[in-house]
Amino acid sequence: MTRLKGDAAVVKRGVATPVADLVARTAHGERAALARLLSVIEAGGDPARVALEALAGRPPTTAVIGITGAPGAGKSTLTDRLVGSWREQGKRVAVLAIDPSSPFTGGAILGDRVRMQRHETDPDVFVRSMATRGSLGGLAAAAPQAVRALDAAGFDRVLIETVGVGQVEVAIAGAADTTVVVVTPGWGDAVQAGKAGLLEIGDLFVVNKADRDGVTATVHDLQGMLHLAAPRSWAPAVLSTVATDGVGVDELVSAIDAHGEHLAETGELAARRERRVRDEVRGLVLEQLSRDADAVCGGATFDTVVARVATGDLDPYTAATQLLTPHPVTR
Amino acid sequence: MTRLKGDAAVVKRGVATPVADLVARTAHGERAALARLLSVIEAGGDPARVALEALAGRPPTTAVIGITGAPGAGKSTLTDRLVGSWREQGKRVAVLAIDPSSPFTGGAILGDRVRMQRHETDPDVFVRSMATRGSLGGLAAAAPQAVRALDAAGFDRVLIETVGVGQVEVAIAGAADTTVVVVTPGWGDAVQAGKAGLLEIGDLFVVNKADRDGVTATVHDLQGMLHLAAPRSWAPAVLSTVATDGVGVDELVSAIDAHGEHLAETGELAARRERRVRDEVRGLVLEQLSRDADAVCGGATFDTVVARVATGDLDPYTAATQLLTPHPVTR
Repeated sequence: MTRLKGDAAVVKRGVATPVADLVARTAHGERAALARLLSVIEAGGDPARVALEALAGRPPTTAVIGITGAPGAGKSTLTDRLVGSWREQGKRVAVLAIDPSSPFTGGAILGDRVRMQRHETDPDVFVRSMATRGSLGGLAAAAPQAVRALDAAGFDRVLIETVGVGQVEVAIAGAADTTVVVVTPGWGDAVQAGKAGLLEIGDLFVVNKADRDGVTATVHDLQGMLHLAAPRSWAPAVLSTVATDGVGVDELVSAIDAHGEHLAETGELAARRERRVRDEVRGLVLEQLSRDADAVCGGATFDTVVARVATGDLDPYTAATQLLTPHPVTR
Repeated sequence: MTRLKGDAAVVKRGVATPVADLVARTAHGERAALARLLSVIEAGGDPARVALEALAGRPPTTAVIGITGAPGAGKSTLTDRLVGSWREQGKRVAVLAIDPSSPFTGGAILGDRVRMQRHETDPDVFVRSMATRGSLGGLAAAAPQAVRALDAAGFDRVLIETVGVGQVEVAIAGAADTTVVVVTPGWGDAVQAGKAGLLEIGDLFVVNKADRDGVTATVHDLQGMLHLAAPRSWAPAVLSTVATDGVGVDELVSAIDAHGEHLAETGELAARRERRVRDEVRGLVLEQLSRDADAVCGGATFDTVVARVATGDLDPYTAATQLLTPHPVTR
């Protein structure tokens, strides 16, 4: 069914066939095809559309785990440990590392990826970095769609690691089946976690670098704040790890499994996944609208309007309306 | 002129007059009017439009300083110190604290604001928290427009403090005349600053909590990475402070002044402000388009489409296109 839909779409739209082929080869476990498919999805546009059409046809099955926290909390090392534990259980694991783009160069900075090199030769581990582009729909759209491709490739676990605790990162990590929030004793107190909205998205909290001072206090603070929060059907656990030595990683794997069972038993899994689809579709709607914005925010007319706003001759609201009105956006 | 434009807009659109009055009273230094005006701007919609029309009529004059860095770096304490120094110079200062909203409650968490209480009774200091709402145009639009109101109110300095190092925060802080990036010896190394895109937006770098271990190494790392970056007409300085004790704050104030002089002398100030206007207008265009997205991403049709995507019956791209096509968005 998947194959048919993909081919049909390709013929209908007159796009070259390779994209649908990539999907078929991905489903047969070809890593190179998966890598290319993810590039297609990341780039967006019509080829991505064809890819997603070809990927449709069955509900997703892979377990999606999000991991987030402040820079320097040791997320990458913890990710590496989780991958190792899951591999010992015979599970196939994909890691989607969401790196913030540099706002000036547009490139992702992949410093931490080197830590994953010990899994590089393992055919059942797949690591991929994706840059966050813009603050708009682009990213919100690309991550869940990359998960669809990894799901089709048959991975048992997809771990989405986000760098930073900005809204975009929190939104991505929070869109997982199970969200793990990593803090350190040195990072800051529970108030800082609350500030970043992490208390509300976390299903599991990990105080990493637990060989440092202040672990007990940080665990206690987190537990206290979680206790004050609105009760949920799942009471978030607070664990502590020393990722560099592997301490506490087995307990974290068990806690992730326990949360997965809770989701399945309570029907929360279906509810979460539907919420994810809502966000995904809305993200794609925004992406299309954002292309409309690009269309009007460029060229000589835009320059003229900007110059008038800069001198105070025109207010920015009227400028935006003028840009959208005289040149109505057509699809 | 400002007054006339505002009144005209109000009459034309049939909106109650108070918004234009708020602008006039703000220009006469009424704090309560300014506070209400900022609420109007933050809420958006037609009243904000009227406010911005009324605020147009002259180019902005206030110096805008952005301050950003990871949670826990001591930005609020440093902000408090900067306000104190500027007040000693007789300058009127406004602080715009951009707090991340909780993604679930929608509310800003204002923990650090209490530190500013010593300026609370000073009529020449105005502190305002703004929540970041959504990852879209809303925030990008609201912050520069709040600056317009603060400018009209006659503040000599507007300090925009952002919590967190996500893209939205970096974008806001980077849209200032002078951007100050705060790190701590314990926060992480220069690589982490590079990851978050901070190296490229910072005009001045401050290693705060300089009474802790590792200050020299952090200063050295930052200088090294800045040295490797593309040369700019302004070579970013790396300073160290102990904000809690006020150590190094005078040097920071001098460095901010020096950067301001550099901007004025080289013509970079006008270029930056035009870039800010470009972003502001684009933000408002996105905001309008995002309302279009809200219009199609809700209701029974959206629910039906989401349910089909969740079962794999429909791909998310086609879903987005269907939502935008059969119900074309009208403005």
